[in-house]
Amino acid sequence: MRLYDNRSSGNAYKVRLLLHQLGIPFERVEIDIDRGESRTPEFLARNPNGRIPVLEIAPGRHLAESNAILWYLAEGTGFVAEDRRGRAETLQWMFFEQYSHEPNIATPRYWITHNLLTPEREAQLPAKRKLGYDALGVMETHLADRAFFVGERYSIADIALYAYTHVAEDGGFDLAPYPSVRRWLDRVAHEPRYIPITA
Amino acid sequence: MRLYDNRSSGNAYKVRLLLHQLGIPFERVEIDIDRGESRTPEFLARNPNGRIPVLEIAPGRHLAESNAILWYLAEGTGFVAEDRRGRAETLQWMFFEQYSHEPNIATPRYWITHNLLTPEREAQLPAKRKLGYDALGVMETHLADRAFFVGERYSIADIALYAYTHVAEDGGFDLAPYPSVRRWLDRVAHEPRYIPITA
Repeated sequence: MRLYDNRSSGNAYKVRLLLHQLGIPFERVEIDIDRGESRTPEFLARNPNGRIPVLEIAPGRHLAESNAILWYLAEGTGFVAEDRRGRAETLQWMFFEQYSHEPNIATPRYWITHNLLTPEREAQLPAKRKLGYDALGVMETHLADRAFFVGERYSIADIALYAYTHVAEDGGFDLAPYPSVRRWLDRVAHEPRYIPITA
Repeated sequence: MRLYDNRSSGNAYKVRLLLHQLGIPFERVEIDIDRGESRTPEFLARNPNGRIPVLEIAPGRHLAESNAILWYLAEGTGFVAEDRRGRAETLQWMFFEQYSHEPNIATPRYWITHNLLTPEREAQLPAKRKLGYDALGVMETHLADRAFFVGERYSIADIALYAYTHVAEDGGFDLAPYPSVRRWLDRVAHEPRYIPITA
């Protein structure tokens, strides 16, 4: 498999982490998103939405959207629940991640670490900060009496939420008031075959 | 099953439409989001993220996130592909919907139709309009030579994207330049046991 990847992206890291934990060999193709490499005609033929990660799952056959890729890789493995309710709860947390968490926690990190903080974006930060802390609050409540997000087992729901939570401080978030989240981050980082986002 | 619902919400409509098409009887509980009924302690016990729709799938057991609910209901039916790649492509479009489509097409509709257009939100409209048209462009390209989003068959990927596309004009979007999207909207509206958002 070939992964169209970006070193700084948490969405791409989700896929690298799971591929590594599953022991699936893959080729990495680094896409420089700052230089528009995800918007070239060649790239848009792979993903018309112009975003990484994209996984080539068969020759010429590409899959986009990090959490859909996680699902594709995890089906039939121990990384996703076997029962119908557990699978739906896994997806519930993955949609929560893309709608309520990623736009508020990952986007400020991207703007700040890629030097893209225009005055217009600066004006959006307080609203994003509030919504990001709301999302962390939802996670804290859920994890108060649980080891992992679904079925007391490490799964792709944890991978999806871990990717940008563990680097939330890059975007100016303080995780100190979220002790259950911090304990969960530590549990994920001690899973077998874990690799850091920098790997 | 009991659906915590809202008449004006496209996300809630997705679930109503699929429940009706599957012939599953359900009880509707209307939640007045303008009056904060999705943020009461009782409601937050059902969904700590404070959003509708929520489906009570067993006594005291609640599932949130519209697209996760669609998946739960569709598993094992003709509304989701049977093969691994088809399922992943279905999820790819559903994550596209929640990340690239809904925040840009549904949110302006919500602000406008619920009289919530503050000056701060007004300032965000041009950016959302551009991203919303980008999303419609991605759909138009995909549908140029396809009847439905995945595997040439009506599925929950179509339901997820139909919900806010067919009322995009409420949010100020013009669908005239998207003929393939308009033909697809018409196909969806002629599916067996279709119900309108107002039903």
